[in-house]
Amino acid sequence: MSVKIAVLGHGVVGSGVAELFFKNKKSIEKHAGCEMDIKYILDLRDFPDLPYSNRFTKNFDDILNDDEVTAVAECMGGVEPAYTFVKACLEKGKSVSTSNKELVAAKGDILLATAKEHNCNFFFEASVGGAIPIIRPLHRCLAANDIDKVAGILNGTTNFILTKMYNDNMSFEDALKLAQELGYAEKDPTADVEGHDACRKICIISSLVFGKHVYPENVYTKGISEIQLCDVADADILGHAVKLVASVRRLADGRILPCVMPMLVSHENIMAGVNDVFNAVLVYADGIDKAMFYGRGAGKLPTASAVLGDVIEAVKHKVTVFSQTWESSADNSFVASVDELSAKWYFRVPVDCKAVGEGAYRDDNGTSFITTKELTFTQAKEKAEELNAMACIPVLE
Amino acid sequence: MSVKIAVLGHGVVGSGVAELFFKNKKSIEKHAGCEMDIKYILDLRDFPDLPYSNRFTKNFDDILNDDEVTAVAECMGGVEPAYTFVKACLEKGKSVSTSNKELVAAKGDILLATAKEHNCNFFFEASVGGAIPIIRPLHRCLAANDIDKVAGILNGTTNFILTKMYNDNMSFEDALKLAQELGYAEKDPTADVEGHDACRKICIISSLVFGKHVYPENVYTKGISEIQLCDVADADILGHAVKLVASVRRLADGRILPCVMPMLVSHENIMAGVNDVFNAVLVYADGIDKAMFYGRGAGKLPTASAVLGDVIEAVKHKVTVFSQTWESSADNSFVASVDELSAKWYFRVPVDCKAVGEGAYRDDNGTSFITTKELTFTQAKEKAEELNAMACIPVLE
Repeated sequence: MSVKIAVLGHGVVGSGVAELFFKNKKSIEKHAGCEMDIKYILDLRDFPDLPYSNRFTKNFDDILNDDEVTAVAECMGGVEPAYTFVKACLEKGKSVSTSNKELVAAKGDILLATAKEHNCNFFFEASVGGAIPIIRPLHRCLAANDIDKVAGILNGTTNFILTKMYNDNMSFEDALKLAQELGYAEKDPTADVEGHDACRKICIISSLVFGKHVYPENVYTKGISEIQLCDVADADILGHAVKLVASVRRLADGRILPCVMPMLVSHENIMAGVNDVFNAVLVYADGIDKAMFYGRGAGKLPTASAVLGDVIEAVKHKVTVFSQTWESSADNSFVASVDELSAKWYFRVPVDCKAVGEGAYRDDNGTSFITTKELTFTQAKEKAEELNAMACIPVLE
Repeated sequence: MSVKIAVLGHGVVGSGVAELFFKNKKSIEKHAGCEMDIKYILDLRDFPDLPYSNRFTKNFDDILNDDEVTAVAECMGGVEPAYTFVKACLEKGKSVSTSNKELVAAKGDILLATAKEHNCNFFFEASVGGAIPIIRPLHRCLAANDIDKVAGILNGTTNFILTKMYNDNMSFEDALKLAQELGYAEKDPTADVEGHDACRKICIISSLVFGKHVYPENVYTKGISEIQLCDVADADILGHAVKLVASVRRLADGRILPCVMPMLVSHENIMAGVNDVFNAVLVYADGIDKAMFYGRGAGKLPTASAVLGDVIEAVKHKVTVFSQTWESSADNSFVASVDELSAKWYFRVPVDCKAVGEGAYRDDNGTSFITTKELTFTQAKEKAEELNAMACIPVLE
């Protein structure tokens, strides 16, 4: 038997899927247990010089109506037309593997239900953490655990910028410019810099771990554009690195609190050493205590690796993998507001501020300290106003 | 349907399996897709006060001959009688999940073949890296990759000792004594300290990744008992941490080179930040570039988490998972000798030694430096003799 697959989109990720597939075809087939081939690549552009140029089509219906195609890799990005295409494939019983976090965060519940209904699979390992195996470990390897909290560095662009600020004393603006020059940041960097990309990813993790669809619009999201160089330096002196952390934790009453915001991560925490464009996900659970998964969160071949890993799983699984799913959520009362976030906080206040305790650090930029007690988000904002604070950042517990 | 499982051994790991199973029974059953129960626990001792004391048996045949038992967790440790029991279970078509690295490193090929023959599974996620999901990610999530190299901190005891030497300026002897007091090291610490435990684990990884059984006796193994405090300090000044690294790489001619030895790990490498009893595995491959898996490498519940994750997989998979296997190896010509290891090397030589280049660090303990060029293992040993070196340690590339 030879399994025919189709790749939707021949951009960065889609071309990586084709490249890695043809490079490692033999061992991929060995892992899948059968012969495999890419029968179609969907793209509106022409690629006449590629060795596999004869596989391109501009017509999605060629793929949809070919019963020989049983597995599809969706690498187009964006909600539409990806959603329409993916849904149509699943309705025909074709399993789909995607790298599209926007799609999964917006429509994951519907697509998972569609896959179940049609006895196929909707896989999305590549949508969170790029190359890092995290989706499958969460619902399979850690299946015996009760997971309390997940905290991740889920956006490579912002982590690169923060690393440059820390290592090379660059300002946010200069580091962003460098990231754009190196191709790590888009011309319009809003989605990365303001945390929206990380937000989609923590929504996917939250939905998978806690079983109900969490929508990006219900998740407090703050980016790194207000982070000052002096805060990165002061945090270091106080024993911490500043990272954009996307996290979710379960509260005592069973509700969950997902959020995305800059946080101080102790140098004692392995996550503080995650630098440059690398991503990492820390999982806290009752059996394992904690485990971290680290790797490249984006890029052509790293993302392709995750997409193809899913395609191989899709080929091996003839039935829907029921542990990798979640329900739709009509109301969002199970998602707590960020006002309930409780943490120690880093403050930078004017030098002459008297209300700071021991261990504070003073220089021309102000006085920096970390509170000894936990404050809620609301309490911290009130305190920041009271002290005329220039910065107020929570510390990852 | 209710699946009945048996636990062989009620020591640290076995009692952890029972504890975690009963604690998270509901969600475990949800992940497995069916009801589950522990029907037997095999132990020669009595545990009359446990709430599940009625499930104990001293007779292995009770388990073997009960057709209702379809999944077995082996947590006894050691090659015998574990090997006899596990083989007998597999021959009856009962899937076995084990935490026993000695067993897998010595008999993995035979047990995998037995499982295949009887259409069941032999799983061993818990045998490497404790709680860390590494076996399943290697053969499933990274299935589209060509893996070049794996390097791991696979022994928590030695990592604890090296961390204490680094952080607290403790001597090897004092740190070992503390590890014993805390229960991290055995009374006879040889297996940990001399690298034999890490060796078994890299044998399992090597066998899985490269497809042929690698035996511990063919793997160069050196422990940390000769590491001096001044080498840990000098390595730090030269930008590195000393770690006991178990690694395997594929050479240009296709042979593989597994080995266990202390190595210098650059502070730039995320693995340098893996401290205390934590373990980590770095995987280098063509698709992902590199990825690291980090967590607790031992302990009651962490190991139980991995065993139970496997038990759940065994319940879900009615057929043998063919990607998680390797062949027997009648000859070991595919395993290269450590003489071929090529690396930069750290040397500590007498203070008055003239043959050192720039960047060397001098103090009363000698002169420390890292070579600018790579040397083979044999060349490094020759150079060490020539320079009357007090220490000679390779640098992880």
